[in-house]
Amino acid sequence: MFKPTVYWSQGAVKLIDQTRLPHRTTMVICRDLKTLATAIRRLQVRGAPAIGVAAGFGIQLASTRFKGSGRRAFDRHLERAAYHLAASRPTAVNLFHVLDEMKALWTGAPEFSVAQLKRAIQAKAAALYEENRQVCRRMGDHGERLISDGMTALTICNAGALATVDYGTALGVFYSAKAKGKRFEVFACETRPLLQGARLTVWELERAKVPVTLICDSMAAAAMRSGKIGAVFTGADRVAANGDTANKIGTYSLAVLAKYHKIPFYVVAPRSTFDFRTSSGSGIPIEERSADEVRGFQGAAAASARARVWNPAFDVTPARLITAFVTERGVIVPPLKKNLKRALCGHG
Amino acid sequence: MFKPTVYWSQGAVKLIDQTRLPHRTTMVICRDLKTLATAIRRLQVRGAPAIGVAAGFGIQLASTRFKGSGRRAFDRHLERAAYHLAASRPTAVNLFHVLDEMKALWTGAPEFSVAQLKRAIQAKAAALYEENRQVCRRMGDHGERLISDGMTALTICNAGALATVDYGTALGVFYSAKAKGKRFEVFACETRPLLQGARLTVWELERAKVPVTLICDSMAAAAMRSGKIGAVFTGADRVAANGDTANKIGTYSLAVLAKYHKIPFYVVAPRSTFDFRTSSGSGIPIEERSADEVRGFQGAAAASARARVWNPAFDVTPARLITAFVTERGVIVPPLKKNLKRALCGHG
Repeated sequence: MFKPTVYWSQGAVKLIDQTRLPHRTTMVICRDLKTLATAIRRLQVRGAPAIGVAAGFGIQLASTRFKGSGRRAFDRHLERAAYHLAASRPTAVNLFHVLDEMKALWTGAPEFSVAQLKRAIQAKAAALYEENRQVCRRMGDHGERLISDGMTALTICNAGALATVDYGTALGVFYSAKAKGKRFEVFACETRPLLQGARLTVWELERAKVPVTLICDSMAAAAMRSGKIGAVFTGADRVAANGDTANKIGTYSLAVLAKYHKIPFYVVAPRSTFDFRTSSGSGIPIEERSADEVRGFQGAAAASARARVWNPAFDVTPARLITAFVTERGVIVPPLKKNLKRALCGHG
Repeated sequence: MFKPTVYWSQGAVKLIDQTRLPHRTTMVICRDLKTLATAIRRLQVRGAPAIGVAAGFGIQLASTRFKGSGRRAFDRHLERAAYHLAASRPTAVNLFHVLDEMKALWTGAPEFSVAQLKRAIQAKAAALYEENRQVCRRMGDHGERLISDGMTALTICNAGALATVDYGTALGVFYSAKAKGKRFEVFACETRPLLQGARLTVWELERAKVPVTLICDSMAAAAMRSGKIGAVFTGADRVAANGDTANKIGTYSLAVLAKYHKIPFYVVAPRSTFDFRTSSGSGIPIEERSADEVRGFQGAAAASARARVWNPAFDVTPARLITAFVTERGVIVPPLKKNLKRALCGHG
């Protein structure tokens, strides 16, 4: 059922083009780094975990394209590739984690030949891919216990198979609950400006036969007040050491509304989304994107082309609004700073 | 500067077609009641005060179209017209107020000839039109005191000239503040699904040279958290006796967020928007509109055509979240039930 969102095949990185879903399922075939970096910037591939895996394949792509035999030239070539990829999305931390892990391969093994290093890079990219698949299933299994029979869960953006290799973070929790035979429903926020909820989450959940109702972002509060919502599940783009969480713009709004309505608010994110070098949310850079995304949608203009716009792609939800994190190492509850460090900082 | 949104001219009701703004300024010319009721349903004319004035002209339209001379037939004809108009939007109370005032003309003056009653209807519709213009300016003058120099105010939907005859409720406050020489800015929520903020409010404020920044509805919380927002100003579609306020979906969300961020939340509404026969918000019927409004964006499809949708057009903000009402009789603060009754129930 889960076709991979991003994978390596025949010397290229292949991606489902998420800007065309749900109307067309087409692939982007990246045979060079520039195509891949552009695909990340344009959100043809998106979701912090999927971007991380794509970045690993990006280094592999740069590696296979190198035709020389000198390590110094190879290392410089790889450094440039990492730099190029790092510039594509500033908020998703998985990207930087992966680039750091890749860099450790060449900085840590100066004795390797170019051929040996190429094999190590290939093996690492494949391992990151496989690890993401496993981690999503483990998060799903831990998180599904938070879904009770008859519950309606609310989600925002797409924290699904399309945001990972193939199962999802927040939506992975729903897939695991479904697999356990639980009956529940999902309300999906459409997620302006790029409508990942309407386009991707509804598509994914319908395919998985999870009952889903689409709402505008502004309707979440009214849905909560009417008693429809039992819990909120979101993904994350970067979590600081204290639990402050950057995620799709609108997530913070849902967290405040959930607090007001006494509804639990869960963040589902793999360990690779945690950034223990950033102490709090104020240290997370927030990408601002093009005004045209807000002025219209896919070519349909709402406001005039000169309307002034504020378009932050993410917001930061302070840890105090988060009921718990669902990770591959289990459900982590407050006090978050202490418990996140204890659960995630060691090697497990 | 303010061309009327709705007016009577040459035997017809003329409306700016708000579904085509800001890209095209075209008029809908209603020579019969059906065209007018359809225009209300399709939101070619919208905003509770503008709908009220349009309904007055609607009765005038029905009246001028009547060619007989018998009062009984005329009264039946007018009753049918009122019934037809009442069915067009269930939430906007101004519509029902106006229809009640119109009905009082024929039920209260059985001695009038058809010609006399026609003149009375024409005079009443014209008076409602003129009254709305005056009331908006009075609200603006009371409300502008709440705008401080350097403030950024947040608004949702379009509570402007386009929602009234020609000046606005919430936006009228901004026009009055501007006229007083105050420097301030406005953040406009785009207001999904029909984008009245992006399409109408940005257009109006740009024309009036009030600096305006467009945001998606989901960005309001982040804007508040960043300290950008000094106050929220909204219009209303119906206010119950206790101050509970039905307004565009997303208003309740802003009210909760404003409370959390300790930002004042003001509702700007004329007396005709208050419904003292409805004791609380739970008695206000909430119109649910077509799923297609949420599935797409100005004709561009986002979700699949079979996606299940929840699309309430309005939500109810409980009185406890409202800092004050701005009315033509002044700014009304809590305790709201008592103070609204005292200020608005008498004839002033």
